[in-house]
Formats: sequence, C-alpha cells, structure tokens
Amino acid sequence: MDFLQQSFSVRFDYKVFFTTHLFSPENPAFGKFIEGEKKKDTPPKVFFVLDEGVVAHHPDLINGIRSYFKGFPSLQLVEEMIIPGGEQAKNDEALFHKIVAAVNTRKIDRHSYLVAIGGGSVLDLAGYAAAVSHRGIRHIRIPTTVLSQNDSGVGVKNGINYFKKKNFLGTFAPPVAVFNDFHFLTTLEEVDWRSGISEAIKVALIKDAPFFQWLVQNATLLAKRDMPAMQYLIKRCADLHMQHIRSGDPFEMGSARPLDFGHWSAHKLEQLAGFNIRHGEAVAIGIALDSVYSHLSGRLSREALDQILELHQVLGLGITHPLLEVSDDKSPLLLGLEEFREHLGGRLTITLLNDIGKGEEVHEMDSALIRKASEWLKDLSSR
Amino acid sequence: MDFLQQSFSVRFDYKVFFTTHLFSPENPAFGKFIEGEKKKDTPPKVFFVLDEGVVAHHPDLINGIRSYFKGFPSLQLVEEMIIPGGEQAKNDEALFHKIVAAVNTRKIDRHSYLVAIGGGSVLDLAGYAAAVSHRGIRHIRIPTTVLSQNDSGVGVKNGINYFKKKNFLGTFAPPVAVFNDFHFLTTLEEVDWRSGISEAIKVALIKDAPFFQWLVQNATLLAKRDMPAMQYLIKRCADLHMQHIRSGDPFEMGSARPLDFGHWSAHKLEQLAGFNIRHGEAVAIGIALDSVYSHLSGRLSREALDQILELHQVLGLGITHPLLEVSDDKSPLLLGLEEFREHLGGRLTITLLNDIGKGEEVHEMDSALIRKASEWLKDLSSR
Repeated sequence: MDFLQQSFSVRFDYKVFFTTHLFSPENPAFGKFIEGEKKKDTPPKVFFVLDEGVVAHHPDLINGIRSYFKGFPSLQLVEEMIIPGGEQAKNDEALFHKIVAAVNTRKIDRHSYLVAIGGGSVLDLAGYAAAVSHRGIRHIRIPTTVLSQNDSGVGVKNGINYFKKKNFLGTFAPPVAVFNDFHFLTTLEEVDWRSGISEAIKVALIKDAPFFQWLVQNATLLAKRDMPAMQYLIKRCADLHMQHIRSGDPFEMGSARPLDFGHWSAHKLEQLAGFNIRHGEAVAIGIALDSVYSHLSGRLSREALDQILELHQVLGLGITHPLLEVSDDKSPLLLGLEEFREHLGGRLTITLLNDIGKGEEVHEMDSALIRKASEWLKDLSSR
Repeated sequence: MDFLQQSFSVRFDYKVFFTTHLFSPENPAFGKFIEGEKKKDTPPKVFFVLDEGVVAHHPDLINGIRSYFKGFPSLQLVEEMIIPGGEQAKNDEALFHKIVAAVNTRKIDRHSYLVAIGGGSVLDLAGYAAAVSHRGIRHIRIPTTVLSQNDSGVGVKNGINYFKKKNFLGTFAPPVAVFNDFHFLTTLEEVDWRSGISEAIKVALIKDAPFFQWLVQNATLLAKRDMPAMQYLIKRCADLHMQHIRSGDPFEMGSARPLDFGHWSAHKLEQLAGFNIRHGEAVAIGIALDSVYSHLSGRLSREALDQILELHQVLGLGITHPLLEVSDDKSPLLLGLEEFREHLGGRLTITLLNDIGKGEEVHEMDSALIRKASEWLKDLSSR
C-alpha cells in the first residue's frame, strides 16, 4: 500500500534545582530563569497555582512572591489561585475546570508560565491543566513534600482521577523547570516527612544497593528530621528517577515499565481506603508485601528481607493493612493484581527482588504465596 | 544553584497510507498493521469512534468493519461508538466525556487502539480523548474529508473548543498510523470537496510554486470531482504538511509557526459565523485577503494575485464575507488580528506572499491596508 513516512524526534531538556527560600530577595535564580527563557517582546505572564495546605503553613508565601516579582519588572505576575491539596483534589474535576478557566480569564498563553507550588496532587492537577490548555503552557513545578521532591515532581507525568481510577486522565508533559525548595519540608506533618521516604527505599531496592545501605545507616537521622540527610536522600532519589526516565522510554510508549516496585498493591490499597492514606504509606506497605513475597518465592534471602523490614520499623513505616488481608480468591488484594494486569494491557509485569539493589521483572504471581506473604506481615506486625 | 540536568529525545514514527476500500476483505493492510504492532500475549482491543455523517453516507461501513475483523481473530473488536461530526461536535464537552467513559467501560488500555473515522472535527475530538485517557491510548486516524486527508488528519494535533475558543484544550500527540481512504471522498457534499482544496492552495502559495501551477492547470478537473487529480493533490499536500512538521518544531515549543497563511482572519470568521462555515471556506477567504494585502503592500505582483483569485473562482471558493467588512477600528476583523497576537503570546507573526511559492513572516499589519484589501475583495466579488 502506498504511504508517506513521518519520523521525527522531539527533544526535552529541563533542570531540577535544589535550593532553600526560593522567593527570598537574595535568591534571584527563579526570576532569572524565566528572564533567561524570554523570547518575546512582551513580558511573559507568570501564573501561580498554590496548594492551600502550603499557604496555610507559609502565610507569608504569597506576599513574598509578590515582593520578589517587583525585582523582575520584565515579568508580569498575574493573580494567583489557591486550590485544595491531597489526593481528593485529583478526584474533583471542578478544580481542573477552575484552573483552565483562570488560564482563559488571565489570558495565559503558550509563552506564559503556569507555576504550581504544592504536594504531588496539586502538581499533578495543575500540570494536567497546563499541559492541555492551548496544547501546553510552559509549566514550572515547585514540589513541597518529600514525595514530590524526590519522585513525582521531577518526572514527566501529570493527571487527575476519573471514574474513581487513579490518573485515568493525564499526559506525559515535561516541565520547563523544577525547583525543589527544602524550606517547605520544615512544616510537613510527621506522616508526610516519613512516608515520602518510601519512594527512595523503592528505587534503592531495585537499582542501587549502596543507596539502600546509606538509608539503613541514616535511618535514625532521617526519622529525627535531620535536614542534611533528607537533602541527600531527595537529590539521590530524584537523580535515580530522572536517570530511569531518560534511559528508558520516557513517555512509556512501548512496554517499558516505570519504577513501580511495590506499587500494584499500593494502588489497590489507596483505592480501598478511599484515598484516605498517603501514597507513600501505601507504597511502604506494598514494598513490604513484595519483599516478603520475593523471600517466600526463593528469590530474596531472609537476611536481606529482615534489613528491609527493620528499615521500615526505624522510619515508622507500616508493613500491613487490614484492607489487604486475603481470605479467599475474591479478596480485594487479589482483585488488585487482576486490575493491575488490565492496567498494563493484558500482560502482568511485576518487579520482585533477587537481592537488595537487584530488581527482576516477573509476569506471574502466585495467589497462595501472596496470601502467605500478607499473613506473614500481619503476624509480624502484631508481635 | 545546585541542579540535576534532565535531557532526552522522544522519537515518533508513523505512516500515512493511501488506499481505497480499507475494510474490503481483499485489503488486509489495516488488520495486518495492528497485528504487526502486537507486543502482548492478549489480543489488542480495537475501538472505533465513527462520524455520524460518514455512517449515514456509508450505511454498510459498520457491518463491513465487523466482517473484516472476523478475518483477524488475533484482534478484539469492541462495540463501536457513533458521534456527531462538524465543528459543533468540538464545542460539546459532553461528547469528550462520552468517549472517555467508553474507554473506561470497554476497558480500553494503553495497548489498545482507538480508531477514529471521520472529518477533522471527529478526529480532533476523538484524538484528544485518546491522548489523555490513560495518558495516551494508541490512536489511528481514518480521515474522510479532503481537508482532513490533506492537512489536519496527517498532523500531530488534536483538541476541542472551550470558552467558545477554537482548540482551547488539546495536545500534540502523533497517531500510530493514518489511513487515507479515497473512497470516502465520493460521498462528500460539494462544499466539502471544494473547500478542502484551500489548504493545498495555502501550502502551495507559501512553499511550492510548481504545485501551485499544477493546481491552476488541474482546477477544472478538480472542480469536476476528478478522482485521480484529487488523489495527487491530497498526497502532495499531505507530504508538504508532514515535511513542515518534521523539519521544524513538531510540538511548537519554541516560536515556530505552523503553516497558517490566511488563517488569522479565517479563525475570526469561523468564530463570528458561529462555526456555521467550513474551515476550508474560511481559509479560502483568508487566503484571498492576505494575498490582496500582500499585493497592496507592494510584495506580490498583480499578475500573481490575479492567478490566485482566478483559481478561487474556478474552484468555486469565496473571497469575501460580510462579517469581515471593516467600518472602523473596532471592526471584528481588526479585533481578530489582536486576538491572533494574543494567541501567539504577544508578538504577531503573519505569513504574507512575496511571490507565488514564497511566504514571508511579518510582525505587523497595517489596519488601513487591511480595510482596503477587504473593500477591494468586496468590490471584486460584486462585479
């Protein structure tokens, strides 16, 4: 059959910056970044979308931003918008429409900037609105939680939940820059500080044994909210995550899998809990489950497993949840495995551990062994 | 400031096939294409979204598709969906939700195929739904009009209208394949056949003088609905459009402009007419206006201008519209220029003609001269 061939590559470049007090007058990097990108005669508009929770903990933030922009007369700050944070925000389509409507009324165009400040949910929601408005407004992310600074905020995905399904609508749309401001971490609730570490444990377990040993050695410091330790963790974890994106299939067009060790059961747990559990808490439990499964299926040594579960304990991370108990073949956890298979398009791919730092993709899991792993963890946690 | 650099390229490849009777049992290309892409153990699902108008003109189409897929047991045809076509479909957000809901209930995943059959509006709408569902379902386009086969359908954009603004929501998302089936053209209304030629005139005028001369020489044949002439036109125009995409900035991330000669006033006319005018009709008028402006501003010879306007006449294309008359500085046409400037993010870029086949980008247009061009065309058409 007669045809024309289309082939092209699209290059994406962005920096993930690490700083504190991004909008302090002594810290010109943010303003200079946008000034440096300027390609038009007119001052680019800058539209901030802020997480309600962040604004509550940092009441001077908005005024600080306004003062900061007075130092950059070549940039045009427009009226900001504050939206609720947390996973529930991603369930509320009205919030998506609210951001898109603001893009319209504030006349934000493709050369303007939509800057999102917040946890992963606000970044996902605002990033999606930015990605589809005018087929893509320039988007800057300022993640404010451990989880978003070390994982979701530095990647290329966005999305909202739909039909109660996580990220049912979304796109792959790299930001033009990410600014990780460590100062935001100082006001995090305890559970957000700790549970955000799960993604670092995840990536260390499947990719980087020395990083896992670093986590073990620094677990007490991390639990005590030592800031230099957390800064190292975030940068190392962000780096591993970014390496994975660029070395593989950034927009997941083929069969490549994201770094989702421990995530199949975590997704189901979040759904079962009505999203009233932090993603990081669910991932910690998912990691524990797949680590025990890796041991029970003869892949992972008992010694390695114990080290993982001990790290969870020192960091105050859960290892089991009543909603994941398996009583029969119709138990929600096992249905979650089937849903994950569907989500992947028919063929199951799960990462298990052959050793610390050594993930292996498998295409089958044994229900009886999943049940045994679940019971094993329940027994351990009730001891 | 400390930072990590992210850099990667994403490669996109797709073929635009030219055929007739795509779903005839003797034409296995479509089924073989999907079979050839198959990467999973399970049969990929194929979900058709069809333009109501196409189904009305081709009442055997759906049964034909069902029979055709019986010859491909390794593919899983799911229940199709029929949606209204035409620009009004892109104004109706409920249709977007309807497609996304069908993606959910039919369990269409990232390895499934959403195949859209229809005119440009149905392709834009279904393409947008495919692009954001699960962050991108594999999407195949089967354009059925001259305009969509030679222009929009072979490109990388999708979108819906919002706040009465054309393509306010959308993405850049290349299809995995395009199948141009010439048989669909046989049932087009006269206005759709003719007005679709506008995009070929446009690209010829700014890029390809020999193609323009071919259009002049074949105008009578084209007006008589000669199929071989139209097939040549579509393939040549699609090729020029695809070359422009790959040689420039496919996702328009910089300041690169799409091939939009004659489009600034066309967009305004479509809006003023409540979208009750074909895009191709509006583009023909926009081309006439910018050609006269090019002549009046001393760029284009009178001889070349006459050739353009004569081509319009032979093809039965309009050159003026009452809604574009300029009476004062607040006339809608002049406001349209301002809106186009905003749409581009502050700096106006308009393509004018220095000669046939030679477009030039300018950053200013003179209101008095636009008015003169508009009056010039009004006088000419009333003669």
